Amino acid sequence: MPASSPLALRAIDSFHIGGRRHRVTGLPVPLRRLAQNGAPRPVDPNGDHMVGQMYVQAYRLAAPRHALPVVLWHGGGMTGANWETTPDGRPGWLWRLLEDGFDVYVCDAPERGRSSWAMFPAIYPEPPIFRTLDEAWDMFRLGPADGYDSEPTQRRAFAGQQFPLESFDTFAMQWVPRWAGHEVMTSDAYDALLAHVGPCILMAHSQGGGFALRAAQRHADTIRAVVAVEPSGCPDAPAHPGPPHLTVWGDNIEAHPVWRAYRANVDSYLAELRTHGGMADILDLPASGVRGNTHFLMMDRNGDDVLARILTWLDATLAAPAASQ
Amino acid sequence: MPASSPLALRAIDSFHIGGRRHRVTGLPVPLRRLAQNGAPRPVDPNGDHMVGQMYVQAYRLAAPRHALPVVLWHGGGMTGANWETTPDGRPGWLWRLLEDGFDVYVCDAPERGRSSWAMFPAIYPEPPIFRTLDEAWDMFRLGPADGYDSEPTQRRAFAGQQFPLESFDTFAMQWVPRWAGHEVMTSDAYDALLAHVGPCILMAHSQGGGFALRAAQRHADTIRAVVAVEPSGCPDAPAHPGPPHLTVWGDNIEAHPVWRAYRANVDSYLAELRTHGGMADILDLPASGVRGNTHFLMMDRNGDDVLARILTWLDATLAAPAASQ
Repeated sequence: MPASSPLALRAIDSFHIGGRRHRVTGLPVPLRRLAQNGAPRPVDPNGDHMVGQMYVQAYRLAAPRHALPVVLWHGGGMTGANWETTPDGRPGWLWRLLEDGFDVYVCDAPERGRSSWAMFPAIYPEPPIFRTLDEAWDMFRLGPADGYDSEPTQRRAFAGQQFPLESFDTFAMQWVPRWAGHEVMTSDAYDALLAHVGPCILMAHSQGGGFALRAAQRHADTIRAVVAVEPSGCPDAPAHPGPPHLTVWGDNIEAHPVWRAYRANVDSYLAELRTHGGMADILDLPASGVRGNTHFLMMDRNGDDVLARILTWLDATLAAPAASQ
Repeated sequence: MPASSPLALRAIDSFHIGGRRHRVTGLPVPLRRLAQNGAPRPVDPNGDHMVGQMYVQAYRLAAPRHALPVVLWHGGGMTGANWETTPDGRPGWLWRLLEDGFDVYVCDAPERGRSSWAMFPAIYPEPPIFRTLDEAWDMFRLGPADGYDSEPTQRRAFAGQQFPLESFDTFAMQWVPRWAGHEVMTSDAYDALLAHVGPCILMAHSQGGGFALRAAQRHADTIRAVVAVEPSGCPDAPAHPGPPHLTVWGDNIEAHPVWRAYRANVDSYLAELRTHGGMADILDLPASGVRGNTHFLMMDRNGDDVLARILTWLDATLAAPAASQ
C-alpha cells in the first residue's frame, strides 16, 4: 500500500435516503429549557418525525481508476466512522480505497450516527442496547472473555493480536446504541441506496456483512462483487448464485463459541452458493499465515495488508469473465 | 463563488476527542437477540461506557490558501451534516470553504451523530428532546407558527423566503435528539478540540453560536475570529474584548418572539464587547437588502452569497492589524 499523497476529489457530498414521516399524537407536553440563556418553554413531542432514513457520505474522485464505486456498510452499534481514520490515527480503509482509485460511499445505518434515531416506545417499540467495553473486549476478540479491566494496564489480550490496544478506549468512543428487531427498516434503507448508486462493489462488516449477503441476493443485477468482512449473519438459503462473494475472517474464531457459530452458519451458506454455481471465496487469514486479527480487521495494525489481499481478489474477480451472471 | 472544480486534499481524517470512561453497575441483564440469525443472549449494560466524547472530521487541503483552518459547530438537535451538501443537493459551506482555500474541521457535538450518546437515567439524568417538523417550521422561520402541515402542498411559508421548501422533509432527516442541561459536557469537548487545533477561525450556528461566543472569551489566544450565525445564546458579560466577532442574522426575526429575544440578548452582549474595545460586527441581512433568509442560512438558496459576505469580512478582519489583541 503506498504512503499517503494528495488526492483530487471532484465532490464530497452527503445525503439522507429512505425514511418516511411518522405522526405522533397524545403524548404529554413538558416544559424544558433548550438554549443556555433561554427560559423553559413547552416542548411538544406530538407532530411529525422522520423515521428510518440513512445518512450517506459519497467521496468522488476527479479521476477514478475503477469503473465501480465501493459501498461501505459498518456493523452493529457502529457508524461509518469505522472506515475512516483508525483509533490510533492511521489512514483507514476509506482513504486507502480512494488512494487505490475507487469512489467510495460511507453509510451510517438507520438509527445510528448521522442517520438519527426515533423516540421509544412511541415510535420504536423497544429501548436500545448499549455495548460495554467489558463485553466488546470479548466479542471483538481482543482477549479472553474475562480479560477486560477498567485500568488499561490490567487488561489481558491474546498473544500476538493486531488491534492497537492503547487506543481501545478511543475506539469505544465510536460505538453508538443500537436496537434489536430493526432489520426491515435497515434493509429498506440499504435497498434505497443500492437503487440510487447502481452498479457497485459492496464491502460490509459484521452485522453489515449479514445485510450485504442478503442484498447480494436481491440486487444481483447491480452488486458486481460482495466482500463480507466477518459477517455475523446470512440469509437462510440462496435462491441463485448472485455476484462473486468473498468472506474474510480473522484469528481466534474457533475458540469463541459465538463467532464459531456465526462462521459455521456463513460457511454453510457459501457452500450452498457454490452448489448453485456461485463464486464464494473465503479469505481465512490465520489459515493463510496471517495471525492475530481481531473482529475489527480494518483497524488492526496490519489492516492495510488485509485490504491489499481483498483488492487483489477484487481485481482478479472483476477482470475475469462473469461466470455466474 | 466559483463553480465546483476538483480539490486536492492531503488528508481527510476523523477522530474523537474529550470524553471519559463511566462505570455502570446494578442494572438488570435482559436476554436480547442481536444478530439476524442469532439466538437471544444476555446483554449486560453493566460495565464501562464512554461519555462526553466528540466526533470531528478534518479536511486538509494539499495547498491551503489561508493560514488558519475554519472550525464549524452546528446547532441544537443537529450534526455536522448541516455544513455538507444542502438538502436539495447543492454544495454546502464545507465544500465552499475548501474551495476558498481553508482547511476545515466539522464537529458532531457530544450526544449527537457520530459522537454517540449514553443511556438514561443511568448516565444522563434526563430523557432527550425530539423536535417535530411542526415546531421546526416555526422555530426555523420558514413560515408562520401554524404554517406546517403533514401534506407538503398545504404548508404556508413566508413570502420570499429562501429555504428550499421542497426539501424540508429531507432536511428533517438530519435532525437528531438532544438533551437539555448538557452545556458543561459539550463545552468541555469543544475546549479539548480548540486546544488540539490551535489558532483557528471559529464559525458556529444557533446553539453552537452560543458556545462559540463563550469559547471566544476562554480561548482568545487561539481563536483569531469568531463568526456566530444566528446564535441562540451568549455569555452573561464579556471579561475582555476577545477576538473579532461577527454575528449574522436572517429575516423575520422581529416578528418572532423567541428569536427577537435571543437576538436582543446577543446584541447587548456585542455592545458590551465594544465598550471593552472589542470588534463586534453585525451582518443584518435584511438591513443590508438581502431578504428572506431563514434560521438555516447555510442551506438557503442564497447561502453562497451569505457565505461570500462572511468571507469578505474575514479577509478584511484578518488582514487588518489586530486592534483588540
